[in-house]
Amino acid sequence: MTEVDWSAGAAYIDGEFMPLKDAKLGITEWGYRRSDVTYDVVGVYYGAFFRLDDHINRFRTSMTKLRMNPKESDDEIKSVLAELVRRTGLREAYVAMDCVRSRPPRGVPLHPINGRSYLICHVMPWVWVFTPEQQERGVHAMVASPQRIAPESLDPTIKNFHWGDLTRGNFEAHDEGAETCVLLDRDGNVTEGPGFNVFAVIDGRVITPKHGALQGITRKTVIELCDEFGIRCEVRDISRNEFEAADEIFFSTTAGGIMPVSRLAKRILGNDRPGPISAQLRAAFWEKRKDGWHATPVSYAS
Amino acid sequence: MTEVDWSAGAAYIDGEFMPLKDAKLGITEWGYRRSDVTYDVVGVYYGAFFRLDDHINRFRTSMTKLRMNPKESDDEIKSVLAELVRRTGLREAYVAMDCVRSRPPRGVPLHPINGRSYLICHVMPWVWVFTPEQQERGVHAMVASPQRIAPESLDPTIKNFHWGDLTRGNFEAHDEGAETCVLLDRDGNVTEGPGFNVFAVIDGRVITPKHGALQGITRKTVIELCDEFGIRCEVRDISRNEFEAADEIFFSTTAGGIMPVSRLAKRILGNDRPGPISAQLRAAFWEKRKDGWHATPVSYAS
Repeated sequence: MTEVDWSAGAAYIDGEFMPLKDAKLGITEWGYRRSDVTYDVVGVYYGAFFRLDDHINRFRTSMTKLRMNPKESDDEIKSVLAELVRRTGLREAYVAMDCVRSRPPRGVPLHPINGRSYLICHVMPWVWVFTPEQQERGVHAMVASPQRIAPESLDPTIKNFHWGDLTRGNFEAHDEGAETCVLLDRDGNVTEGPGFNVFAVIDGRVITPKHGALQGITRKTVIELCDEFGIRCEVRDISRNEFEAADEIFFSTTAGGIMPVSRLAKRILGNDRPGPISAQLRAAFWEKRKDGWHATPVSYAS
Repeated sequence: MTEVDWSAGAAYIDGEFMPLKDAKLGITEWGYRRSDVTYDVVGVYYGAFFRLDDHINRFRTSMTKLRMNPKESDDEIKSVLAELVRRTGLREAYVAMDCVRSRPPRGVPLHPINGRSYLICHVMPWVWVFTPEQQERGVHAMVASPQRIAPESLDPTIKNFHWGDLTRGNFEAHDEGAETCVLLDRDGNVTEGPGFNVFAVIDGRVITPKHGALQGITRKTVIELCDEFGIRCEVRDISRNEFEAADEIFFSTTAGGIMPVSRLAKRILGNDRPGPISAQLRAAFWEKRKDGWHATPVSYAS
């Protein structure tokens, strides 16, 4: 038997473990063909999961809302994820769990009620949505023209792969010399960007959108950090004008933590560097992570 | 070497032919993970493609709008599709072409500009969106509550897998005893359903939405058929009230042709059977298909 190299990534599909490079989805499955899928991503850093239960709870809520019920219990999902990380040996890892709906078998109506749902989990070496260098100097962003898909169409609290608007926004950003985009809703309020929540700092207060965005676990963590530091945090609508005039802007995501922004289209924020509150929150976030904050250590022994 | 059975389906991925059951997509590819993909479906019936060039042209337009440029020319795509059908030997086949974006390689920014695009095509035995029995007695539909994803978010003329709203609508329909759903836009006008365009017949005129729906090839064919039969056809907004009071309703799609509706939620249309104009158009559609209308015959000899 050939020795398997798991360090490049490991995956689990509906009961079976395999190297990530072998993990594939049939092209007729509705998880692909109708994007009938939900997912979650939890980070492993310093050899430990961060807020594992929060991610598992959100994932379960998303699955239930989509009427998906894979065979694994929450505890079993946690075991699968831990086993995947253990196999890779990675101390810093990107850990994803998807639940997809299958295509109904032939001979029954082509209706999602006839599809079964199953898990696809994978672990790969840690991914930075923006590199540490980008975070140090501040991300270059812009407000792009596509409207974020409305909550009346798709519940944004169900984490999903409906990224067409975000992808179009990202190309627009690229054309304008920016690295990423932020989308507005139909009322002109800020929602989110490709894979991250958005924060504005205005007059010493930290503000994040109430509607039209994923309820991020790192977003929740930022709100808690603000509380700890005595920084007033508001969850409310942010208009485009208010956003573009903000003192500071930063993003939050699992695969990146707290990521300061230094440019918004042509506007240079602060001194073309991360603002003081953004930098303070980012430093505190990683300091506390190192100290085992909300951590579930991975057991690497076999 | 084992004899391969192609009759269950055949596929082509980025240069390679394979049986459909072996055709899979890596779970980290953005075609799945960000639904960064466009597609088209052309039907083969009576051993011939229907309006092949129209489908290829629409597919190319969709790919260009998404900045996708696979290595195959339009003629090469047509050759691939013909070869897939030939291998299966199927005289009635569902023929799909997808173009997906890959995940960028490690070490470059996680931006779609760094992904490459490639083709995934497949052929399987003909699929009826609604069975001939359902079409004979009329489909049972309802207007469901999710709003169709807005054109300001996603260009509906780019055929896409962003089906979350349609899937939710389909579950709602199932709960109410209907077989499928029709979605409205934010202004309350009719858009489309899961995989089909929508038509209302009012006072002898055939009406189909102007905005918020795919520009279907079968929809275009219906418009041409109406012209041929001297039936007035209007492409314009249809309000919910107007739609619910229509004399007849029918749907159109590649994998089904013209499909009459006999119930809309609690309302029974006509005599709980397809209306006369719907039935006339449906009969003419298949009659003309049989006679080689817009046909590109498949060469089955090897």
